Order: sequence, then structure tokens, then C-alpha cells
Amino acid sequence: MNNFSSKLLETAVNELAKLPGIGKKSAVRLALHLLRQNTQEVESLGNALIKMRNEIIFCKNCFNISDTEICEICNNQNRDAGLICVVEDVRDVMAIENTAQFRGLYHVLGGVISPMDGIGPGDLNITPLLLRIEKQAIREIIMALSPTMEGDTTNFYIYKRLKNIKVLVTTIARGVSIGDNLEFTDEITLGRSIVNRLPYESTFNR
Amino acid sequence: MNNFSSKLLETAVNELAKLPGIGKKSAVRLALHLLRQNTQEVESLGNALIKMRNEIIFCKNCFNISDTEICEICNNQNRDAGLICVVEDVRDVMAIENTAQFRGLYHVLGGVISPMDGIGPGDLNITPLLLRIEKQAIREIIMALSPTMEGDTTNFYIYKRLKNIKVLVTTIARGVSIGDNLEFTDEITLGRSIVNRLPYESTFNR
Repeated sequence: MNNFSSKLLETAVNELAKLPGIGKKSAVRLALHLLRQNTQEVESLGNALIKMRNEIIFCKNCFNISDTEICEICNNQNRDAGLICVVEDVRDVMAIENTAQFRGLYHVLGGVISPMDGIGPGDLNITPLLLRIEKQAIREIIMALSPTMEGDTTNFYIYKRLKNIKVLVTTIARGVSIGDNLEFTDEITLGRSIVNRLPYESTFNR
Repeated sequence: MNNFSSKLLETAVNELAKLPGIGKKSAVRLALHLLRQNTQEVESLGNALIKMRNEIIFCKNCFNISDTEICEICNNQNRDAGLICVVEDVRDVMAIENTAQFRGLYHVLGGVISPMDGIGPGDLNITPLLLRIEKQAIREIIMALSPTMEGDTTNFYIYKRLKNIKVLVTTIARGVSIGDNLEFTDEITLGRSIVNRLPYESTFNR
């Protein structure tokens, strides 16, 4: 049964319902919201999405999303080009940039090795990473993948591939989150935070 | 601080974040999802929204969303044109159509009277409703507004305006939902369901 009195509305709702996390009811709500907006506002939404998809470029160096062939971060002369932070996707770049604690460059893998999802090393930007390390004067790569089995597998795979290349491989610290209650921290994180304990003085002036 | 490595991405995220119920994080997730789709898919989404907004028409008779000047429901000769169901918005039309229990026509008010939100009778399609009732041979209007104070106010306002017009005004039944547990039903609904009790035989063959 077709409950839409308008094909235009139905088409828009079906398109919106394709988005992840948006069901049919939310799609109807969004479509009716858009109907109450000015035509210009709806046009700027629709055109922003189309323009983004059509014109976006992935940086040739680090595979970050970019408007240019080499992204702003890779092009920034004030950043440490000898330090690469390896991340899963673009959201991780944003999250780390938000901390304002990292002044090196990135390398976006585009995922992690996950045999269950059919994602092997060949599907990720791993070979370009090895080429970067060989060709550019990279002294350290920081693995900043999720602490999941897939993340750990990917860490280990890259670590093995880098064995004969002279570069320091580090991983981001795992530990109890700031503000977290010890009793609610999972055992593995708490355990690692004890094993990787730091001299108390080293935490001053952070 | 600008954390987006791409203005195109940033613009798209900002546009998506204007939608109700979609925060910045969800907007980023949606934008990155769209980047992984084909250009055609993103174009069909964007264009569906723009086309809907630019071309949609509200039915001149009932104010339902329509692709034509008079909507499919009003144009349907098989429906009972003497019976009008008055609803708040287009979603209610869809919900009632889904029940397949109503074969009359609708009248979409476009809201309810809500002094708190600055919505008075003049902002709603009430005068066109009165004109319909006067000009067309309407024998009954069913008020199907939400059981809120605003809905009740609107019901009463319309009822008063209709006092000198010969038309039967009814409201949809309030009662315990089918499948609902009595002990979890609120007192007002339960109270009304006792006051408006029905002969048991009348519930047969529904």
C-alpha cells in the first residue's frame, strides 16, 4: 500500500531512509521538516552533499579527505614531517586534531584488517605507507588504531612489514580515561595502565 | 579551530547538522557515509530533496501534501466526500491511511492552537475548513487531533465555530491501546475508557 499522497515526498523519504541510522519514520520527519524550510535552504543542503561527493579528493600523501591533491596538514611547513600518526579513518584525524597535542602528519589506512568483513591488507593504504617511510625521512610512526582485535592485528601486520626499515614504531598509550572511576574501568585497560605506569613527575605540567 | 581538512566536507556537515535530531557527530558520520557511495547515489539523494521542496504542492481542498492541485485522496471518487477527518499534519494522514479503516476525506490544519508557541487560529487552515463544510455536502467531521491541551483547545475552538452550521462533530475514541497492560495505562485514559465503554457485542467482527 502506498501511504504517500505525493511521489515527490515518497522519493525523498526513500532516499533519506537509505542513510545509516535513519529509519522510515525519521526520514518522514526530516522530509516534512525540509518542506517547511525555504527552497534556498533545501538547495544548499542538497547541493552541498552533491558537491562534496563530486569534488572531494583524497590527499595523495596521507589519504586524508582534502580539497587539494596534497592536504592542508601535509602542506603545512610548521608540522613535523618526520612523525606520522597512522589512523583508521578521517574521523580519527579530526579527533586527534581536536586535542591540539599532535604536530606531525597522518596516514589514513581507510580501515583495519578484518578477515570477517573480507578486508585484507591489500584493501588498505598500507603499501603507500611503507613507500612514504622509505622515501621520506620518517623517524617515528605512531599507531593510533582502535584497541580491538582488528586494530591489534593491523598494528602487528604493519609492525612486521616495517621490521627491516629503520623507523621507530610506537602506539598510543592505553590507560584509565581522565575523569573515569577506577571501579568502572575494564580489567584489561586497568591492567595495562598498571604495567605501563609512568614516573609521577612525568605527569606534571601537562 | 577548524578541524576539517576539507571545506567541502565541512559545508556538507554543517548543512546536515541543521536537520532536527542530527548533531555534529552524526552529521560527520552521515557525510563520511555519503563519501563512500557512488556519485549517482549522492546525486539522487540531493536532487530528490531539492525537487521535493521545489515542486511539492499542498492540495487546495484539504491541504495535504500533493503532486497535483487536488490530491489523490480528494480526487478519489470511491471515497466518502461527506466525511472529513481533521488532523494536525501530513504524518497523521499517513498514519490513518495505514489503518485502512477510513474512507472519507481529510483536512490538514497544519498545526494546533498553541498560544505558547505563538500559533493562533489564524495560522491554521481553519477558515478553509469552515468554507468546505458550508460549500460541500459534509455531514460529519471527525476531530483526530492529539490528546494534548493544545489539541483539546483546537477541538473546542472549531466546535464553537461550527455551532451554527449543521454538521455532526465527533472525535476519535480514546481508550486503552490494544495489547496494552491495564496497570501501565495512565489514569485519565483508563478513566475515559470506562466512561466511554461500549456494548461488548459491538466489538465483535472487527
